[in-house]
Amino acid sequence: MSLKRRLGIIDLGSNSVRLVIAHYTPGHAFRIVEEHSRRVRLSEGMSADHHLQPEAMDRTLATLKLFRDLCAASGVTRIIPVATAAVRDAVNRKEFLARARADAGLRFRVLTGEEEAYLGALSVVNGLGVRDGIVMEVGGGSAQVSELRRGRSKRGVTAPLGAVRLTEMFLRSDPVREDEAARLADHIARTFEGWEWMRVEAGGALVGMGGTARALARIDREARAYPLDLVNGYELELARLEPLVEKLRALPVSERVKNVPGLMADRGDIILAGAMAVAGALRRAGADRMLVSSMGVREGLLYQAFLEPGRPVIRNPREFSVLNLRRLCCPTLPDVSPAAKLALALFDELAPFHGYGKVAREQLWAAAQLLDIGAAVDYRDPYKHAAYLILSAGLPGYTHRETALVALLCLQQRGDGSPPDPAASTLENGAAKWTSRLGALLRLAAALERGRGPAIASLHAAAAGRDTLRLRVRARRGRDIRWELAEAQRAAALFEAAFDCKLLIEEM
Amino acid sequence: MSLKRRLGIIDLGSNSVRLVIAHYTPGHAFRIVEEHSRRVRLSEGMSADHHLQPEAMDRTLATLKLFRDLCAASGVTRIIPVATAAVRDAVNRKEFLARARADAGLRFRVLTGEEEAYLGALSVVNGLGVRDGIVMEVGGGSAQVSELRRGRSKRGVTAPLGAVRLTEMFLRSDPVREDEAARLADHIARTFEGWEWMRVEAGGALVGMGGTARALARIDREARAYPLDLVNGYELELARLEPLVEKLRALPVSERVKNVPGLMADRGDIILAGAMAVAGALRRAGADRMLVSSMGVREGLLYQAFLEPGRPVIRNPREFSVLNLRRLCCPTLPDVSPAAKLALALFDELAPFHGYGKVAREQLWAAAQLLDIGAAVDYRDPYKHAAYLILSAGLPGYTHRETALVALLCLQQRGDGSPPDPAASTLENGAAKWTSRLGALLRLAAALERGRGPAIASLHAAAAGRDTLRLRVRARRGRDIRWELAEAQRAAALFEAAFDCKLLIEEM
Repeated sequence: MSLKRRLGIIDLGSNSVRLVIAHYTPGHAFRIVEEHSRRVRLSEGMSADHHLQPEAMDRTLATLKLFRDLCAASGVTRIIPVATAAVRDAVNRKEFLARARADAGLRFRVLTGEEEAYLGALSVVNGLGVRDGIVMEVGGGSAQVSELRRGRSKRGVTAPLGAVRLTEMFLRSDPVREDEAARLADHIARTFEGWEWMRVEAGGALVGMGGTARALARIDREARAYPLDLVNGYELELARLEPLVEKLRALPVSERVKNVPGLMADRGDIILAGAMAVAGALRRAGADRMLVSSMGVREGLLYQAFLEPGRPVIRNPREFSVLNLRRLCCPTLPDVSPAAKLALALFDELAPFHGYGKVAREQLWAAAQLLDIGAAVDYRDPYKHAAYLILSAGLPGYTHRETALVALLCLQQRGDGSPPDPAASTLENGAAKWTSRLGALLRLAAALERGRGPAIASLHAAAAGRDTLRLRVRARRGRDIRWELAEAQRAAALFEAAFDCKLLIEEM
Repeated sequence: MSLKRRLGIIDLGSNSVRLVIAHYTPGHAFRIVEEHSRRVRLSEGMSADHHLQPEAMDRTLATLKLFRDLCAASGVTRIIPVATAAVRDAVNRKEFLARARADAGLRFRVLTGEEEAYLGALSVVNGLGVRDGIVMEVGGGSAQVSELRRGRSKRGVTAPLGAVRLTEMFLRSDPVREDEAARLADHIARTFEGWEWMRVEAGGALVGMGGTARALARIDREARAYPLDLVNGYELELARLEPLVEKLRALPVSERVKNVPGLMADRGDIILAGAMAVAGALRRAGADRMLVSSMGVREGLLYQAFLEPGRPVIRNPREFSVLNLRRLCCPTLPDVSPAAKLALALFDELAPFHGYGKVAREQLWAAAQLLDIGAAVDYRDPYKHAAYLILSAGLPGYTHRETALVALLCLQQRGDGSPPDPAASTLENGAAKWTSRLGALLRLAAALERGRGPAIASLHAAAAGRDTLRLRVRARRGRDIRWELAEAQRAAALFEAAFDCKLLIEEM
């Protein structure tokens, strides 16, 4: 079953207009298929009298028509066009909106600041699985900070901490002098003073959205040769941000792009102020890292359209992102893989022997659910392809480290069991035992449910002597599981090595 | 649109029974989704009186029932079960066939030797695009050699050159003595003597099928750290096979697996004789390499089912493999990408400037047709994913080198233009200019058709002064192509660097 609806979302900001095209079946699965961004500088020349200028409007309208055509060519049947600050603040916005309607056929909804913050928060809650914490977006003129509690946006505040504004106010020398930077740091700290609510509690996160957050993530990824091609969910540590701030300060603007890999030319001047605003926010919030969101207003609107009206929050984002990927890659498979069900049963039965908890259980489940998707690429090396699909699409709600572990568990199901460089190198040493145990457990479950049946009704594990584990399996009524038992027997050696015990497999 | 039919093909040989499950829409697209193989040793104990033994039959029937269940669980609605030599030669085959029907519900078709050769040839013609040449499969007892002319199997001969038989007859010492090997080489050469038809002409190929060919390919891939994960279409050179033969000869059987990476334990004893039979065939045929086919009878049956009855040969396998991959990855896209159409027009117009021929044109077309498929993995790095999909699935009919070039052309469309290790390292130095030119041309075509429209009706290129090229494009009637021209302008620098000239782009 292919995805039924095709939605275009157009997001018109002060600098750029962006288009996202997504295919979805409401509540079931969605996929973004295209993203376009054009720099139209709609707010150019607007600061004097708050009027959108004719040339800026013409440029913007030409791009809007183009995006409308792109939508039509891609079979989009519904477009949601929204506009933010530039249009909102313009004295002549009615004229512009009328032209957008007449010339491009687009009826823009002008978002309030609160709506913008709400949609951004919605994308964080659904797309990162963060329920509590602080969401911050550093723009050019100001920074938007909102508080998230139990999956709801509780308050949103705009602080005059935009990167362009701060650069112009404080960082006038080139290179920036130490005392200038110190005065800016002081200004940022004092701006946040008294924002008692701006605090990350245990289990919460400070989430960074928007261009500044993504640019900092890009720089940090380059600096540490980050092995994963994922931005959403990237963790930028304050301990790494601080030396970056000092490095940027000491460099003349003209030297920054050359000396800071990952830094784009159009941010060379304002990145330092942006980095300092983020560092100040982290200190204020008592957080040691910023979780980077690659999403924003557009994804918030997408989640609204995708989910039931009035229920814009995915109950379990971790579960959903696994199901979504499975549904996208293998639309004809059932939602629950028999091997995943059995892997959980095995995990639970073996709890006394491995001692792993809920988080490991969810990682195992994800790998078991996604083992099959690689066949969508090619049948000859399905586990390798499954890992590639997982690492390419990401698993929103799972951390990058978890995503790499899930991919690694899939890869381990290959005959040779060789782990992949990209995933393996994100793991600390202690993970080796973990992956070998869960990998062995997964191989056992997959072997017992190789027939796709499902074949196994229940199982029971118990110690049988000092270093032997007895696994008893009960077949589903009327089902011959001799083959499954033989397959499981072939997976036993790996299990025995991982758990350092003998394994007996018997039919009940 | 998803693939409509689900077909299971069961192939019962002397040693193994194999199952392939494929999804397809007749004549449009197909994909193999699963492959299973079980060693049942049906012919065990049969040599004495040509009777299938009761235990061997029981083992086989149990596996057949399992395969039937796997088919049912995978939604297969049609099973084609075929049997070859073991059943064909058995005195009690009627009994076995009756039990297969009664116990497993499978009505086996027993293939004649000619049918086997025909189906193998069909898989070579469709799956490698080879129209003329020699197809050889070295089995245990004998080797099957057929002649292919204009896409038809012209004759098939069985020679007593099976790897087991030759090992037992000639290679009795361990390690094998030089004179034993020399006598075997002589025996092989004399067996082929007088087979005047066993000759590869220009444009033809000697194709190796079956376990021996695949095993030799695996060893050779390991030895040269081959960068592609493809077997079908692998080229094993005689100049590399000869030293391998000498290496294997000098090693005791017990040392071979350890010292020859890629060699599986179950072939350690017979691989030398198999390698020598292949080398002898190459010399006889006057070929400098063997083209390895990973396909066989099963794929031949699949092509028969997939294609129109009576027309079992794909007219243009190169074109089809590109279309098939595009249809599988992006079932909602039209068959012809506007960018591909335009890329060909550009290529033709620029022929005086690049001088490339038909083969390069087909490679460019393939890349242009497959640029879009990466979105099926993720929208954020589509060209990287397109290259991955191409290198994972392969492009039957294109050589491995060509497949790598096509993937490289896709990768070059990324912003940074960095080439990927796996594809790049298969290329000799001279390919750099080629890829930069065709890559620039492709980027230009993709830019002009970025809107998915199609937008461009025609174009014309001509020299304008000594080092300037003028490209004039005509929009389709009523179409505004200012954006496309601006996009093309952004692609101009790459083009100018690749062709070492200035590029003017104008609307006609």
